[in-house]
Amino acid sequence: MKIRRTSTKERSLESIRFVAFDFDGVFTDNRVVVSENGLESVICNRSDGVGLAMLREIGIGTAIISTEENPVVAARARKLKIDCYGGSLNKVKTLEGIISPMNIPLSDVAFLGNDVNDLDCLKSVGFPVAVADAFEEVKRISRVVLKKKGGQGAVREFCEMIYRSQNPRDLKR
Amino acid sequence: MKIRRTSTKERSLESIRFVAFDFDGVFTDNRVVVSENGLESVICNRSDGVGLAMLREIGIGTAIISTEENPVVAARARKLKIDCYGGSLNKVKTLEGIISPMNIPLSDVAFLGNDVNDLDCLKSVGFPVAVADAFEEVKRISRVVLKKKGGQGAVREFCEMIYRSQNPRDLKR
Amino acid sequence: MKIRRTSTKERSLESIRFVAFDFDGVFTDNRVVVSENGLESVICNRSDGVGLAMLREIGIGTAIISTEENPVVAARARKLKIDCYGGSLNKVKTLEGIISPMNIPLSDVAFLGNDVNDLDCLKSVGFPVAVADAFEEVKRISRVVLKKKGGQGAVREFCEMIYRSQNPRDLKR
Amino acid sequence: MKIRRTSTKERSLESIRFVAFDFDGVFTDNRVVVSENGLESVICNRSDGVGLAMLREIGIGTAIISTEENPVVAARARKLKIDCYGGSLNKVKTLEGIISPMNIPLSDVAFLGNDVNDLDCLKSVGFPVAVADAFEEVKRISRVVLKKKGGQGAVREFCEMIYRSQNPRDLKR
Repeated sequence: MKIRRTSTKERSLESIRFVAFDFDGVFTDNRVVVSENGLESVICNRSDGVGLAMLREIGIGTAIISTEENPVVAARARKLKIDCYGGSLNKVKTLEGIISPMNIPLSDVAFLGNDVNDLDCLKSVGFPVAVADAFEEVKRISRVVLKKKGGQGAVREFCEMIYRSQNPRDLKR
Repeated sequence: MKIRRTSTKERSLESIRFVAFDFDGVFTDNRVVVSENGLESVICNRSDGVGLAMLREIGIGTAIISTEENPVVAARARKLKIDCYGGSLNKVKTLEGIISPMNIPLSDVAFLGNDVNDLDCLKSVGFPVAVADAFEEVKRISRVVLKKKGGQGAVREFCEMIYRSQNPRDLKR
Repeated sequence: MKIRRTSTKERSLESIRFVAFDFDGVFTDNRVVVSENGLESVICNRSDGVGLAMLREIGIGTAIISTEENPVVAARARKLKIDCYGGSLNKVKTLEGIISPMNIPLSDVAFLGNDVNDLDCLKSVGFPVAVADAFEEVKRISRVVLKKKGGQGAVREFCEMIYRSQNPRDLKR
Repeated sequence: MKIRRTSTKERSLESIRFVAFDFDGVFTDNRVVVSENGLESVICNRSDGVGLAMLREIGIGTAIISTEENPVVAARARKLKIDCYGGSLNKVKTLEGIISPMNIPLSDVAFLGNDVNDLDCLKSVGFPVAVADAFEEVKRISRVVLKKKGGQGAVREFCEMIYRSQNPRDLKR
């Protein structure tokens, strides 16, 4: 994991109060299984669920924000017990709509992304994060480039980073 | 990405006006998921969709030409908003039928392939392209051998190459 | 395969009389395929079935113990002819409930796990085992870290280890 | 590809008149996708179809012989236009039943396998072949260990080897 300092707006892991995630390429390896009848499936990772449970335990809010308006995102979110906003044409606006009622500023938010359509959102938050196999443009502006690829434990890795930084006790579960 | 000069007919990236794609092994990793009831699925990559959108933006025409007469090709093409010609027994003829009404000569066309049944088509166009895991015979006659494998972003990689070469502004999206 | 001695309670391969397995990340690569309609699938390995047949041949009892209450675990267990206990909130208790009627003590049991929710179970048995891609916390307390990853033959590898250690004849099948 | 000489019974590539294949681990990567409702799927490779077409062209007979009595084997075989014998409890006997009406002796047969339940069949034929990721016992007695793994083009690789050895013209297709 490489940590890069790219702007004065950036915050530390300790200050993160909310984590927003892109879906495809973050919870998945960016691949999509397409069947003859047009049904789509994606490949996720069970270990991410353990990570999200850690964030719930220490009171960090989470949401998935995706441009895709695909029932598969909602299906996975339901299983992970995480809020899900699909079909978002403006991810920054969607994100602001979620955090403003909680009085959380963008500077206290982390965003995990992988592709160029995440750039605006990544630039708007205090803690932009890229999965290991993100596109170069995304890595370049991210504070943290994770060791794990999307769908291979990237979400879990970042959740554990926050959990360890904000939880004084050792990781016991 | 290696660029090889193999004939005087070859054109530059700047001159490409139409891109035709084989499907299996280009949009997919050439694998097929077969279920007990005979239903087939293939594994595609979401990043390719962003690449095709770039080509649409700069007015480059695209089409999938496949020997397989499989509804899975049509299903994926619909999602990607790209024209699709399945069950083609003669890909060169199919390609000519598509581009002649547009008054685009074969010399201004790029074709992405991976296996020996793409050889005729690759030889007929001005800009033949092979995915990273194409068969040797295909790589040998291609002007460009991509860094990415089929189904792992090969389509996206080539679309970005064209976009950057034909779009004076930096890649901003 | 690395063998680590971590406590005096630990037994040898020869003394194992029962093997319990976590499911996700052990019989699978910890990934889950999620379709639009919410149906989940997992990816298992045919070679594991041959391994379990070896244990049956030499009279070693086996069971899958999983926190997930998912029909997919039962479906795979049926095919492998192995008992399956899903939706377990306390894996140690579940394990004790299985082996006590057989008069097998925890010290004669091996457990294969991969994630932090297996830690209690791994600590309770005489022969804790981690798959190659288990989390660090799991590897640290395991007597054996397998060469194979979950879903890529880890179960088969461990079954063969026991079979060879308890079966005087060479592996003939 | 390594070629090993292991017995005087062994024949050259040129003498092969029939090729029999195990299914799981040869046409597939030995993995099986299991869904909640118990439906199984396997992951095959489109390139194998081109290889089998080469054998058909030069008149080499082929068959799949599998211990699994699974409709998924039949489904794939239908697509590949290859005969399929599922649920075989004695693969050697099944093989003999296929080739004896054709007056082809076992010494003119090649068999592709990956796991220990293929050992008898591999020992019985003149040209035993192992995929790259076969178990050690299988590789040890095989005349050829392929470069490609099961489900990743192993079938295609061996078909091309035979085609090139028996077809005087260059590989043109």
